[in-house]
Amino acid sequence: MPELRKDPVTGRWVIISTERRKRPSDFRLENRPFEPAAFCPFCEGNEKYTPREVLCYRRGGGANGPGWDVRVVPNKFPALEVEGTLDRQGEGLFDKMSGVGAHEVIIETPEHGQSLATLPVVAIERVLWAFRERVLDLKQDTRFKSILIFKNHGISAGAALEHPHSQLIALPIVPRTVRDEVEGARAHFDSKERCVFCDIVRQEQDSRTRVISENAEFLAVSPYAPRFAFETWLLPKRHGPTFEDAARHEYESLARMLRETLQRMNRALLSPPYNLIVHSAPFQAPGLEPVYHWHLEIMPKLTKVAGFEWGSGFYVNPTSPEEAAQVLREAETG
Amino acid sequence: MPELRKDPVTGRWVIISTERRKRPSDFRLENRPFEPAAFCPFCEGNEKYTPREVLCYRRGGGANGPGWDVRVVPNKFPALEVEGTLDRQGEGLFDKMSGVGAHEVIIETPEHGQSLATLPVVAIERVLWAFRERVLDLKQDTRFKSILIFKNHGISAGAALEHPHSQLIALPIVPRTVRDEVEGARAHFDSKERCVFCDIVRQEQDSRTRVISENAEFLAVSPYAPRFAFETWLLPKRHGPTFEDAARHEYESLARMLRETLQRMNRALLSPPYNLIVHSAPFQAPGLEPVYHWHLEIMPKLTKVAGFEWGSGFYVNPTSPEEAAQVLREAETG
Repeated sequence: MPELRKDPVTGRWVIISTERRKRPSDFRLENRPFEPAAFCPFCEGNEKYTPREVLCYRRGGGANGPGWDVRVVPNKFPALEVEGTLDRQGEGLFDKMSGVGAHEVIIETPEHGQSLATLPVVAIERVLWAFRERVLDLKQDTRFKSILIFKNHGISAGAALEHPHSQLIALPIVPRTVRDEVEGARAHFDSKERCVFCDIVRQEQDSRTRVISENAEFLAVSPYAPRFAFETWLLPKRHGPTFEDAARHEYESLARMLRETLQRMNRALLSPPYNLIVHSAPFQAPGLEPVYHWHLEIMPKLTKVAGFEWGSGFYVNPTSPEEAAQVLREAETG
Repeated sequence: MPELRKDPVTGRWVIISTERRKRPSDFRLENRPFEPAAFCPFCEGNEKYTPREVLCYRRGGGANGPGWDVRVVPNKFPALEVEGTLDRQGEGLFDKMSGVGAHEVIIETPEHGQSLATLPVVAIERVLWAFRERVLDLKQDTRFKSILIFKNHGISAGAALEHPHSQLIALPIVPRTVRDEVEGARAHFDSKERCVFCDIVRQEQDSRTRVISENAEFLAVSPYAPRFAFETWLLPKRHGPTFEDAARHEYESLARMLRETLQRMNRALLSPPYNLIVHSAPFQAPGLEPVYHWHLEIMPKLTKVAGFEWGSGFYVNPTSPEEAAQVLREAETG
């Protein structure tokens, strides 16, 4: 019998399907390789083909030249533009505002052929540190209310370029999904005076059935009501609302766990395309400190049942999180 | 300058991107053809390879044999199971219930090579009528709270079989997206004593900039804040909360407009994969009569920027609805 499960944060229901039960080898992975590019604008030496860097960690050399480890540049084709004022307008029934925001690319390494699963931990830590620095800088801008950091890895996860990179969008509004999550966490806190994510960490640590791995600072779990097969959350054990206010040793620890988790996925799921999202509290939202709990969500792109889900918001997942956790737990790393 | 636009029903913001502006010819369509199948379980003569029919419109012949125009059968690999009771359980913090529901396939025509863009209007009307009959039947079952009717057309829109078909899922809960839409409509009604969709129909009829086509009963529009390029809504002009309670002549009119709209898309967008969703009020939700307004949403699958959107609920659309409406308006039909 399939199960309907409810996410304790957002209240979103998913179907864990048994008839459509899938083991890792059942997914017909659409993992189209990138066409070999004669030229990559993110490679070392090609710095002049990107907009000028807004942040750079360098081994040597001068600004916008070679010699860097991590480089952050404005997106050349930005979804939003950073210059301008927030012009709000009505149009009868409809509301709009000017598309003011920041859209940046975090080039994670000068080496084209690396990935977050193969880079050394210290290099991944630098990427996380670059996320942090950019968020702290952009938060100063009072036009922005939330920042989304995300990564599309592989063509079918939406990546346009192969060279390892993440993206950041600073928005003048709080997106619906972020609001739903924050409101869900607030409702839990209001009724129980506890953070729902802290409760999840405790219950998962007790039951162990959905735990993939654990270190001193983080817990990697298959969430109870995952939308996608092998969806994985990396939850900090220490409560805190925002990614950018984590402690220095937590970034090191997260880098280690992120690398290991991606290695498990690569091993068990044949290097799947994936999306990674940093969930962090929006700004200018008072009272969130005890309520919200930042974390990372990784969603391998294994299935195509997207149309119905997009339209309805209702997800059918062919792999139970207990089974996914077991597979990933047993996958070798390194 | 890009624009941020807010959907007046759900409150969902989208980015209409200008830097990433796309005309129809800019989309690199991933329209992988189905592999030629030696055998199709939905073709006439192969009735014994599907579960037994729950509804059938016949020209002749006996049950579960050839001679039909439209055939509805349970899904052979159902996401939910129709037998059983709604067993609700808690698991500490978590909630689940048994996956009771119905999952049916509406085989739209015996002819493998047809589509809703090529079938005669009367045949499409029969499909809509089959939707209606199945909903009226399943509504009797008090375990169900909502029914989703949807169609995945083309491999990259999630279709597993080429033979023209739609699907129906009856659920014991109201999915989040449906609830958001209903609550948004209710908030509008509470503040204005008017249906938000009726307001949309009036404003679009006045401004014309997003109208694709119009007949006596329906308006085809590019919505003000579309998540996807060339997203199209078919809105009945007459207010009513549920698809299944439309008048007979409205199904005929909808069949005509649906066919014509798909022909416009095929012409302008080179026969794109698409998802179609029937939005209709959930059951057992008192007071929705004046509040909610059923309609169809069609989403061609042209872009791949899905990962970020899935994770964040925030959509970047590279084609403005004004431009999309103009392109579709000018596309030839027939």
